[in-house]
Amino acid sequence: MPEERSPVLGVFDSGFGGLTVLRALLPRIAGAHYIYLGDTARLPYGAKSQATIARYAVESARFLEDHGAEYLIIACNTATALALDEIKAAVAIPVIGVIEPLVHAAQKRHPNSEVLVLATTATVQSHAYAKLSEAQGLRAMEKECPLLVPLVEEGWIDHPVTRDVLRIYLTEALAAGRPKAVLLGCTHYPLIAPEIEAMLRELGSNAEIIDSAQATAAEVERVVARQSPATQVPATFECFATDSVDKFERLGSLFLGRAIEHVHHLDLGG
Amino acid sequence: MPEERSPVLGVFDSGFGGLTVLRALLPRIAGAHYIYLGDTARLPYGAKSQATIARYAVESARFLEDHGAEYLIIACNTATALALDEIKAAVAIPVIGVIEPLVHAAQKRHPNSEVLVLATTATVQSHAYAKLSEAQGLRAMEKECPLLVPLVEEGWIDHPVTRDVLRIYLTEALAAGRPKAVLLGCTHYPLIAPEIEAMLRELGSNAEIIDSAQATAAEVERVVARQSPATQVPATFECFATDSVDKFERLGSLFLGRAIEHVHHLDLGG
Repeated sequence: MPEERSPVLGVFDSGFGGLTVLRALLPRIAGAHYIYLGDTARLPYGAKSQATIARYAVESARFLEDHGAEYLIIACNTATALALDEIKAAVAIPVIGVIEPLVHAAQKRHPNSEVLVLATTATVQSHAYAKLSEAQGLRAMEKECPLLVPLVEEGWIDHPVTRDVLRIYLTEALAAGRPKAVLLGCTHYPLIAPEIEAMLRELGSNAEIIDSAQATAAEVERVVARQSPATQVPATFECFATDSVDKFERLGSLFLGRAIEHVHHLDLGG
Repeated sequence: MPEERSPVLGVFDSGFGGLTVLRALLPRIAGAHYIYLGDTARLPYGAKSQATIARYAVESARFLEDHGAEYLIIACNTATALALDEIKAAVAIPVIGVIEPLVHAAQKRHPNSEVLVLATTATVQSHAYAKLSEAQGLRAMEKECPLLVPLVEEGWIDHPVTRDVLRIYLTEALAAGRPKAVLLGCTHYPLIAPEIEAMLRELGSNAEIIDSAQATAAEVERVVARQSPATQVPATFECFATDSVDKFERLGSLFLGRAIEHVHHLDLGG
């Protein structure tokens, strides 16, 4: 158990992508204890309906609250886009999604400019990025990229097929405008950020890539720091997965950038 | 309700692919009534663990039996490969999977030869095809093709990226042998059968493509005909989906080759 006054933070994603957010969080809040839940038995959320995504996300949020989380980070763009209000209504702890911090970061760096959001089908169809960007003064073009998650999970990172798919998606997106920034609206995409950047340059765009991991971690630090003075104790974490723990340990380590061990299996009744 | 002596058949898949099997079944058994269940809220099964797949498949099988099915067709290679025994143990009606009919069909056309099986990661890792082929006298090489389902669902059928992915997968597979037949071990793959055939020819293979839809439909006809004499009444069907019914109607029609209407939503408690 974490020592007194060290915050317990729940981090939720449909699978492994949210580990890129946990990776950005770990060095920021000394003494924190993170409980990460990947709903891997029911992933991916990106092509499912709003009602199904909200039902799954609320079950996971309740588990993390019941398990002692004092703050909840929705480290999944799709769940944030489609279920943030339902999650906030279902738990009594502060809830932080990945979309608002990313839009804030973009507005701070490129005020009132045009940005391009790359995301899953469900996230794009919710128009959560477009609505929030407009409210902040940004103009957001949204582009569905349904093949990028399977390509990352296949491990085809620095790969000609991934470059061809990026060329198609980005050519289509850039035909509609000249964005100052490209927002990675899915937590899988940071793993191919260098490939996305190289393709933007090949296509004549100098847009800056901004991802949700650092932006969200900075926002969480701001919220938590108000109540939990930092100590010098390193942060700790434990992981729960609803599908195979072996696969979670193997694939998850790629996203977290360090070994993951002793993953707990969790049955959410699905 | 179907008329007396007209059989009621349950058809189960994780999503839409099993509709290629239903498509092959509809013209075969006059007077039959089909209940199709797509567990779309929890698809895809192809990358999940055996325990999770078996749990999901058994829930769906029980629903179809409770709903009046007298025969159960597991129109999903992954569920057949990983959960056929569990499903048979969970219901009291005859259960027919897609793997055994496909292997039988291959052995009949190319006795004691070498065949190549294309399938999802979970199906390949189960080695269900290799074991059954060996028992029948065939030698099966198995090749995981995890990107083909997302490409089909993206609608990239006659598309250069799909050709590049097929070139990579088939080049790797053909380096290991010279198969007489290529077995489509996933019910999504019939939608890109012409592209698979063209790539086999480009790579110098004259292997014949055999898919599970016709092989399974013929086996079902054989089993059912023993007990239910055919009438001239056309077969009917109704569909249940665990995720959005709108998406099921839209995407499912591509797999079935005719319009699907009035899909029922079903909550399996996941």
